Amino acid sequence: MASTRVVIIGGGFGGLTAARSLRQADITLIDRTNHHVFQPLLYQVATTALSPGDIAWPLRTLFRSQRNVRVIMDDVISIERAARIVRLQNSSPIAFDRLIVAPGSRHAYFGHDEWESSAPGLKTMTDAVQLREKMLFAFEDAERRRTLTGVQSQLTFVIVGGGPTGVELAGALAELGRKTMGPDFPSLRLESLSIILVEAGPRILPGFDAELSATAAAALTRMGVIIKLRSPVSAVHADGVRAGQEWIPSTNIIWAAGNRASPLLNTLSAPQDSFGRIKVRPDLTIPEDPWIFVIGDAAHCLGQDEMPLPGIAPVAIQQGRYVADLIVQNVAPDQRPRFVYADRGMLATIGRAQAVAQFGSIHVSGLVAWLLWCIVHIFFLISFRSRFRVMSEWTWYYLTFKPGARLILEQPATTHNSPSTDHTPL
Amino acid sequence: MASTRVVIIGGGFGGLTAARSLRQADITLIDRTNHHVFQPLLYQVATTALSPGDIAWPLRTLFRSQRNVRVIMDDVISIERAARIVRLQNSSPIAFDRLIVAPGSRHAYFGHDEWESSAPGLKTMTDAVQLREKMLFAFEDAERRRTLTGVQSQLTFVIVGGGPTGVELAGALAELGRKTMGPDFPSLRLESLSIILVEAGPRILPGFDAELSATAAAALTRMGVIIKLRSPVSAVHADGVRAGQEWIPSTNIIWAAGNRASPLLNTLSAPQDSFGRIKVRPDLTIPEDPWIFVIGDAAHCLGQDEMPLPGIAPVAIQQGRYVADLIVQNVAPDQRPRFVYADRGMLATIGRAQAVAQFGSIHVSGLVAWLLWCIVHIFFLISFRSRFRVMSEWTWYYLTFKPGARLILEQPATTHNSPSTDHTPL
Repeated sequence: MASTRVVIIGGGFGGLTAARSLRQADITLIDRTNHHVFQPLLYQVATTALSPGDIAWPLRTLFRSQRNVRVIMDDVISIERAARIVRLQNSSPIAFDRLIVAPGSRHAYFGHDEWESSAPGLKTMTDAVQLREKMLFAFEDAERRRTLTGVQSQLTFVIVGGGPTGVELAGALAELGRKTMGPDFPSLRLESLSIILVEAGPRILPGFDAELSATAAAALTRMGVIIKLRSPVSAVHADGVRAGQEWIPSTNIIWAAGNRASPLLNTLSAPQDSFGRIKVRPDLTIPEDPWIFVIGDAAHCLGQDEMPLPGIAPVAIQQGRYVADLIVQNVAPDQRPRFVYADRGMLATIGRAQAVAQFGSIHVSGLVAWLLWCIVHIFFLISFRSRFRVMSEWTWYYLTFKPGARLILEQPATTHNSPSTDHTPL
Repeated sequence: MASTRVVIIGGGFGGLTAARSLRQADITLIDRTNHHVFQPLLYQVATTALSPGDIAWPLRTLFRSQRNVRVIMDDVISIERAARIVRLQNSSPIAFDRLIVAPGSRHAYFGHDEWESSAPGLKTMTDAVQLREKMLFAFEDAERRRTLTGVQSQLTFVIVGGGPTGVELAGALAELGRKTMGPDFPSLRLESLSIILVEAGPRILPGFDAELSATAAAALTRMGVIIKLRSPVSAVHADGVRAGQEWIPSTNIIWAAGNRASPLLNTLSAPQDSFGRIKVRPDLTIPEDPWIFVIGDAAHCLGQDEMPLPGIAPVAIQQGRYVADLIVQNVAPDQRPRFVYADRGMLATIGRAQAVAQFGSIHVSGLVAWLLWCIVHIFFLISFRSRFRVMSEWTWYYLTFKPGARLILEQPATTHNSPSTDHTPL
């Protein structure tokens, strides 16, 4: 054919890698935002260490020199397999010869979508900025109410989910609270500050070896984080959460407990698992459609142990490259090797000079793991500018405990609507 | 008295300087945001060259080592002179012995407040971020509608007001549009991009010498900016603006045409000018109240030429210092020297290697003025970190034409509500 029309839905790790690997085809990359986010560092934006611009890049700029890629900022509302088009919210439909579906996931609330407003999660830059504003505002509000009751639950941060995101958030919040907010809010008693990490299972970081889980838990505890294991969440309200048998009063609940794949996948009419992910074939296609691929968080793809691969950046990147290769070489469906994930190991950071790392049977923790974590994350950032900026910001934060992005741009609407506190004369 | 209770309303240049100069008194600094903004560079956030965190600092951190300052983030709703208290939206009232009123100003729409929604201005960090998102989104939306009509008014940017803010915005937008957005949006014809600077008077930069005004106008024209002089705005709508006799279709109107002092000043019961500013006495106090000072944009203060001083940072800074001195030395009302503004000159930047500067009878333009502008602005930034960041961002932008902060965090709500465009098959 003259020029293969490839449509890629989603500019995350999978979609971005696929587009970069496809130098020949006529590519349309659709994303609902105008940027690619380096998700592994999103929690650092939420906890003020980095600015949004440090870890996000306009998709158009990334493809400025790759003239075969057209970028569209829009929402995809449906995929129509029979017509071979994708329908968009605000633009004309786009026809495709090959389709790469990489829309990612949102948080899953175990069927309790009403929990989301009280317990937002952390998937997009907007999530991160909103979380940051809410957290900073909780301190401001506690400060101005200091003579009143009710400060305790405002300074209690509950993180639901003991995976890497939950652990990294808890560690970063503990550091921020004690080292940065402490000196900034001298009239708050920081004994009131509680950071509670709630996990349904028997240990945090269940993907890691048990010994590293224990190391991470000990490090978090030393930093003042309270870890509650075997505490599945059964209720979330604006003023607290029920975890296990306990009611924890808190107005700052953060959700890091699970994913649900994009609802767009429902329009594919292909088998899905209980998280909404498409059960892809070994070549990442959907059944009976060898040129529609699903990758990244959206794909239920079995690894060599017959367990679904985790929703992490390396899996999405490798899948993006694999799929691009099949398209470039136009490999016939019956001649495709199955996708095999090359596991390069896992890293999770806990705090300053504290991390855990696992590479097959090699386990590392403490300063060495932390330096490794820093180097790996700097290395995978796109562009010299971001590497330079993130490295200089980390150095500055490390030396001064004054992270660079602690601005509240919007006062929460609730403040203006809430009844004023008593105007008792001083 | 044991400890003088000084209350400062507003953490802008005036309020911040006053608080920093008062090392002894018991100070309460109230601001509706949690940060001080370096306003002269706000237009660079709006035009994506800098990130919010580069030019704003949490007030609490600025006063971390100055233990006599308490910071409250809240809205002041009234000043009660008889009771010697200020009332706040969400906290208890605060009593004062000395009061420094420095709440700044918002935009003035010549009695047409309904214009604000179509023609937002640029005073706060929230303004800057919203302007940036709206501007970036205009390009995205034009791109996805490229086969439809109506792109022209989306790519027409009208800036109302030919003062320094308007000139700097016009220059920065012209550079961003042609050098950055051009390569990013290859399918938009950039001939459609219009940047129009509208000024009611006979020349731009009226505060500068006529010769420098002409230099600036010529530089802007070379950069593609259309300047319309003697064109007072008589109507503003969401889809355009009437300037002079002409109707200019545009969905991107930015207001830089005038100020109105904070409505809080109305609660002072003191004489005000037509912009709402308090007509202060020579010692910056209000009549019959020698310990209530009004400074910065909120003050109508006569200079040595009997004209009101302009609402610029150096005036506010010098006033803050002057007032702090009176308070520290507890100078009796009849023994105070009048406030005298020491004019150190004026600078306005137009674009890369283009600026105008005026120091008394010395006039400079071009590269020298621009370097001077860069040095002065870097110098006045607070903290080493900001200087380092702004300098490195400018260098990067200068070399690559890829400014660092081009993220759209929120799709404008209208997009989701607007009817979809025709779904004509390709």
